[in-house]
Amino acid sequence: MKLEPIVWFEEVAKTHQTITPYIHHTQIVTCPDLNEELEGEYLFKPESLQITGSFKIRGALSAISRLSKKQLKHGVIAYSSGNHAQGVAHAAKLFNTPAMVVMPKDAPVKKIENTMAFGAEVIFYDRTKDSREEMTAEIAQEKNLALIKPYDSLATIFGQATAAYEVIHDVNNPKIDNAIICAGGGGLTAGSCIPLKHINPECNIFTAEPSEWNDHEQSFQASKRVSVDINRLGMCDGILTPTPGEIPFAINQHYGVRGLSASDDMVCEAMSFAFNRLNLKLEPSGAVALACLLDNKEKFKGSRTLIMLSGGNVDEKTFSNCLARAN
Amino acid sequence: MKLEPIVWFEEVAKTHQTITPYIHHTQIVTCPDLNEELEGEYLFKPESLQITGSFKIRGALSAISRLSKKQLKHGVIAYSSGNHAQGVAHAAKLFNTPAMVVMPKDAPVKKIENTMAFGAEVIFYDRTKDSREEMTAEIAQEKNLALIKPYDSLATIFGQATAAYEVIHDVNNPKIDNAIICAGGGGLTAGSCIPLKHINPECNIFTAEPSEWNDHEQSFQASKRVSVDINRLGMCDGILTPTPGEIPFAINQHYGVRGLSASDDMVCEAMSFAFNRLNLKLEPSGAVALACLLDNKEKFKGSRTLIMLSGGNVDEKTFSNCLARAN
Repeated sequence: MKLEPIVWFEEVAKTHQTITPYIHHTQIVTCPDLNEELEGEYLFKPESLQITGSFKIRGALSAISRLSKKQLKHGVIAYSSGNHAQGVAHAAKLFNTPAMVVMPKDAPVKKIENTMAFGAEVIFYDRTKDSREEMTAEIAQEKNLALIKPYDSLATIFGQATAAYEVIHDVNNPKIDNAIICAGGGGLTAGSCIPLKHINPECNIFTAEPSEWNDHEQSFQASKRVSVDINRLGMCDGILTPTPGEIPFAINQHYGVRGLSASDDMVCEAMSFAFNRLNLKLEPSGAVALACLLDNKEKFKGSRTLIMLSGGNVDEKTFSNCLARAN
Repeated sequence: MKLEPIVWFEEVAKTHQTITPYIHHTQIVTCPDLNEELEGEYLFKPESLQITGSFKIRGALSAISRLSKKQLKHGVIAYSSGNHAQGVAHAAKLFNTPAMVVMPKDAPVKKIENTMAFGAEVIFYDRTKDSREEMTAEIAQEKNLALIKPYDSLATIFGQATAAYEVIHDVNNPKIDNAIICAGGGGLTAGSCIPLKHINPECNIFTAEPSEWNDHEQSFQASKRVSVDINRLGMCDGILTPTPGEIPFAINQHYGVRGLSASDDMVCEAMSFAFNRLNLKLEPSGAVALACLLDNKEKFKGSRTLIMLSGGNVDEKTFSNCLARAN
């Protein structure tokens, strides 16, 4: 892949302009007593309050807004465990194009319901048996649908980048020292690198993953894409991708991103922390970056750290189980 | 009181400029499927995500920023059941002035702890026996402290007004048809009227109160300040003031504000709705305006309504009890 950081930054700025009418400019949340306690400045970006409850709508809108009129007439297709599904379903509705979404049959009920509520047709697959990529490709070809990739596409990455792009415009001093960003396929991290590194080439950027699904962390260490292959479901349903996406990994490697990971217990602690001290409702995947901060407090002392809180779509029961586990 | 809407609007704009470095510009949250379902446009302003977890910091900063250097040297005092206490404690810290806060001994533990954590000295009173106003006035005189009123002061009201002032700057079309705003003493409502009515003199503004503490609703009907006198505590600990404040009532009456109220059950429904559909954690008082919307859906159909969500400071146990009550 050709590395073109300046062109990318311009694309992100354009994308932000295109998608702004359809999204929330999510605010930054800070917590003065936390800043004192951890002796630093911590900026939380709660994409849980984004339209559809996660950042995924940004990438979906970016990709769909780039389609031709002819493509929009045929429709779009996506595979997703939930948040990208909702993003694509809603973005498709806004661009008046039909949407199909291939979802695992064990995806969180709330995410399936919401995807359907946005008007998308949902097709289920079995995570343990079917290949969602193959299944999606077959339907896409048969019905002539444009595939909206969840992370392995520059169009999607430019959309995800708009969250960090907002941050550098919201703060008086746009120089961020560190950023912790949850990673499934790595699209949000890759996207965030573009504006953050544009403003401050010294910014330390970290992926955040559940300990047992730390394919990014392992891949950065090995300097090549490494897969983790665990045949069970973890708590962070949104980011259980086994291998970093090819394009996101190339971008993340270019920017010198490093990996962090946290246990499920720490993720529960982070959800409880967000609820009790920031008044935020996060889903497990959305709390992983905060879990990595709480697990590595010393690392970020005395500096300015952005923590991306990627989503909040979790049902009441799962949420209260996580909080109970934290107590 | 002299009615000076244009001067007030200019004061609000100035106040916003003064306090902006210290507060969050809270975002607007919308919910596309809710807009469809209720056939209208609903803008939620989550002050639960404000610094200190409620809008009260706005009024506290506004009042404290107007004090003389000499007054700041002596210190400030306030009485509050919780959110104003936290606001004054934090604002005092920012302006480097000592703070004392008189709180009911049965105030929510989280609010007492937070007030102390911001460095204020807390003095307790008994809601059923003591007059907090008298107690506070005595200490203020003895120690030469400036009283930071929770609502019955123009300085405080100009601060609370900055939340609605942000809203009219955040939306493409600043014309809001209706606004529902929770009311204890009525300062947030009075403040909100100033920018909302400045932009749209036809805007319908409603106070939102718990059914049994509907002193504003009764006062608007009687065209004079009426008290409710209930000798027990309700769920909405933040807005149990028995009588509308004199200045807020004069302003609200001038702008033709009307009253709505909702049952505790409906408040629990609203908290559940906010949690499950907006990913927001609200305290009971912070959900009253939403409860009034859900109770009066027909009234707001086909128009554009702002719903002020005033705070989110509630402990986990109370929160889960409220959600359980809604199911």
